[in-house]
Amino acid sequence: MKGYVQVYTGCGKGKTTASLGLALRAYGANLKIFIGQFCKGKTSSEFKALYKLKDKITVKQYGKGCFIKNKPDKKDMLKAQKGLEEIKKYIASEKYDLVILDEINIALYYKLIPLSEVMEIIDNKPKKTELILTGRKAPLEIIKKADIVTEMKEIKHYYKKGIPARKGIEK
Amino acid sequence: MKGYVQVYTGCGKGKTTASLGLALRAYGANLKIFIGQFCKGKTSSEFKALYKLKDKITVKQYGKGCFIKNKPDKKDMLKAQKGLEEIKKYIASEKYDLVILDEINIALYYKLIPLSEVMEIIDNKPKKTELILTGRKAPLEIIKKADIVTEMKEIKHYYKKGIPARKGIEK
Repeated sequence: MKGYVQVYTGCGKGKTTASLGLALRAYGANLKIFIGQFCKGKTSSEFKALYKLKDKITVKQYGKGCFIKNKPDKKDMLKAQKGLEEIKKYIASEKYDLVILDEINIALYYKLIPLSEVMEIIDNKPKKTELILTGRKAPLEIIKKADIVTEMKEIKHYYKKGIPARKGIEK
Repeated sequence: MKGYVQVYTGCGKGKTTASLGLALRAYGANLKIFIGQFCKGKTSSEFKALYKLKDKITVKQYGKGCFIKNKPDKKDMLKAQKGLEEIKKYIASEKYDLVILDEINIALYYKLIPLSEVMEIIDNKPKKTELILTGRKAPLEIIKKADIVTEMKEIKHYYKKGIPARKGIEK
């Protein structure tokens, strides 16, 4: 089966969530899944659930948490770059049918990792590997190269009413 | 914790997938989850994966499969209406923190179930219950009432190149 490149971007809710759903569906079809989460560093509810499915899903985190309000620092950059190197090896191993690079668009937006290297990953991925890239502000170069691009468009969101992220729903 | 009403609509990929991701995240947070799938009737990969998590996730299907190309018939309608009755009981039991009504917008669009009854479900849900409604063509009344609405906007999709749905990725 040929694998494609999918991008989930935009400001609406559901990008990471959709990639989790993809992982769950792929799990049900006995595929092997690798998830690399950029920027995130805390053990979230999703992490705990994925751990239950660890016979087929491998999850790694390459960040130290949210820097949306602040600017990323040197440590954020080092974690992301180390992650990218690790991801290249995971993909090259050809062990994984589905590879999810969660929040990689944000890591690119903040220049934590070079776009050229991500483009190389896309160009050189094994044919069978389905590659998912999530995060707001996907670069145009990636959108051009991808087979499926969905923009999660925020029509309405209660964040604007000042309600913080809730355990089990957003985090 | 107060539960909200979320809608995932639009023509892009990732609506059902996002709801599956929500279920997985909620599972990781030890919440109890009910998923009612309208229109769908086949054992998909997602169904198999959810079954692995059946200690906290209950899934029911209220359709006999895809009628997107054809029109729905009497049997589709009966299954959807039976489903709606069952869903009311599941929600009223107050056992579930997260209730996903997958493809309910499509069931409404084809008039398989009455909008007034779905509005009643939204109005009368237990306070703690997070209610998710997915499917293209969400009615304006539901969008108005919801707390979060995300439109999955198709920017690019390989369906248009004539590639059918693939096991473990789309089905």
